[in-house]
Amino acid sequence: MNKTPHVAVVGATGAVGIEMIRVLERRRFPVGKLTLLASARSAGKTLTYLGTPITVQELTPDSFRGIDIALFSAGGDISRQFAPAAAAAGCVVVDNSSAFRQDERVPLVIPEINAADVRKHQGIIANPNCTTAITLMALYPLHQAFGVTRVFASSYQAVSGTGAKAIEELSRQVKQIAAGEAATLEVYPYQIAFNVLPQVDSFLPDGYTKEEMKLQHEGRKIMHHPGFRASVTCVRVPVFRSHSVAVSAEFERPVTVAAARAVLAKAPGLEVVDDPATRRYPMPLFTSEKDDCEVGRMRMDCALENGLAFWVAGDQLLKGAALNAVQIAEELLRD
Amino acid sequence: MNKTPHVAVVGATGAVGIEMIRVLERRRFPVGKLTLLASARSAGKTLTYLGTPITVQELTPDSFRGIDIALFSAGGDISRQFAPAAAAAGCVVVDNSSAFRQDERVPLVIPEINAADVRKHQGIIANPNCTTAITLMALYPLHQAFGVTRVFASSYQAVSGTGAKAIEELSRQVKQIAAGEAATLEVYPYQIAFNVLPQVDSFLPDGYTKEEMKLQHEGRKIMHHPGFRASVTCVRVPVFRSHSVAVSAEFERPVTVAAARAVLAKAPGLEVVDDPATRRYPMPLFTSEKDDCEVGRMRMDCALENGLAFWVAGDQLLKGAALNAVQIAEELLRD
Repeated sequence: MNKTPHVAVVGATGAVGIEMIRVLERRRFPVGKLTLLASARSAGKTLTYLGTPITVQELTPDSFRGIDIALFSAGGDISRQFAPAAAAAGCVVVDNSSAFRQDERVPLVIPEINAADVRKHQGIIANPNCTTAITLMALYPLHQAFGVTRVFASSYQAVSGTGAKAIEELSRQVKQIAAGEAATLEVYPYQIAFNVLPQVDSFLPDGYTKEEMKLQHEGRKIMHHPGFRASVTCVRVPVFRSHSVAVSAEFERPVTVAAARAVLAKAPGLEVVDDPATRRYPMPLFTSEKDDCEVGRMRMDCALENGLAFWVAGDQLLKGAALNAVQIAEELLRD
Repeated sequence: MNKTPHVAVVGATGAVGIEMIRVLERRRFPVGKLTLLASARSAGKTLTYLGTPITVQELTPDSFRGIDIALFSAGGDISRQFAPAAAAAGCVVVDNSSAFRQDERVPLVIPEINAADVRKHQGIIANPNCTTAITLMALYPLHQAFGVTRVFASSYQAVSGTGAKAIEELSRQVKQIAAGEAATLEVYPYQIAFNVLPQVDSFLPDGYTKEEMKLQHEGRKIMHHPGFRASVTCVRVPVFRSHSVAVSAEFERPVTVAAARAVLAKAPGLEVVDDPATRRYPMPLFTSEKDDCEVGRMRMDCALENGLAFWVAGDQLLKGAALNAVQIAEELLRD
């Protein structure tokens, strides 16, 4: 791999794409050249990278000639359409969509957990689901110490996980309601302001949503733990940014709050924020625009034998998307 | 019991007190006379009952002479201070606070579940916690059919559970933020607008909050099921009204979605709202100001053997408070 690679961001004008550019800047990623790609609709717009304006180009099958690393975040359809050709052209794709996450030829990586899997790539590396990434940042260190068997989890997911239009929708709806007007619907099927929606992503025949099964499916692959089980309810809440997850985790070996705290205090990319006496616990408002995830509310689970209950929050545009993708790109440079 | 009782509402000007008056009207409760009681601060205010203005009187130890039924919703301290004397004066107290819920001499009642327990009262009957009541409306019929052993639950609780000032706080904060101002804090320790708070009620030494243990403690008493276990995370969300709860429930006997649906379709006070194909599921916005609770998102729990995951929502000021209290009063009239 070129040590000062030519990097492309695909979906550069989206909520995650913009974060990818900011993360490349902030982490001083050794970008040789930066190409910004998007749909015809967004082509021609100008974004800045380290103060330099860059014109967004239209994504075409020819876009990847000479590009070393392409960070994709333009949805599964775009990934399926363009990523294989990009890889065939010699570019390494880090794909934020769900399109290739379960593909056996595609590593699915959280660098703090399974960085070595990056080496197995055949041109495409998948970035995990946002809620999965944030949950595993706390769960995996506990798994290493105590051996997780299963979890029960409920999410509190911010609207920015849906994209820039959903941020606008929540903002618009609260203003409409404050003005005594009816809230208009464009992105979500129901009003999200002052409401919660127990549906994220589409439904599977068994009644779970796709989003809800990602923690189990992706968790098994990332943790190399095929027996891992996860029962999840994913819920959209009227929060702009940062996802939170309530978790009850069962372990093979005895766990204590003190032992769990000692393990998590040393975990990379994670901060323990856990002091009931001073009301310190993770919240979306205070993990927004923050790289590290936060874990707190640790307590012995009262319905499991070797169980721990905890609460984790993290910025789903960063660790749940852009940051993790750039961290994968950093691993590529270590080759 | 007098068949047209003299009823008092204690805490009449609070969020629940006002609902109690509305529920008495709406259910045509055979009120002989209505006395409205509150703190000195609220005394002198005028509320209406069936179009008639009633002046709120200051609550004193002498307030209960001649009163048959007193519906208390003025907080645990007021209940501890006044309920025993009210009962001693011959009044039957229906207490919405947590003060007496675990007292062996005090029945804790959800009429759809354990109406017969009302008969055992010694002057005080306790109304359950709001989240507990809403969860049990769906869980108890399933328990009867399949035998519940334990649940894992996470709540999404509306601000009106905290009271009228919390409704004002959420409303004020969204306006402040829309105007580009900092949100001011009066009720909650952190901003509730566009945020979620993983703390409801105060912390116990083991790391759970009091609110989180209520489903287990109150569930055991209401369901007459001392072995019932519940691991709960209670979270305040920026919703004005109606609580929602994500539940994973384990049963002794095999359960199927179809069998559960058949059981719940016949359950009193509960509506099955569950059709993924048409995006029908319970939501706080559509259960607000509605008597029945709603259950949906039913699916075989993928981390339990005999397990069902579901999602229940209900108006915590109604079934979670005022409605249930008036239903208990209705049971008293059946004596």
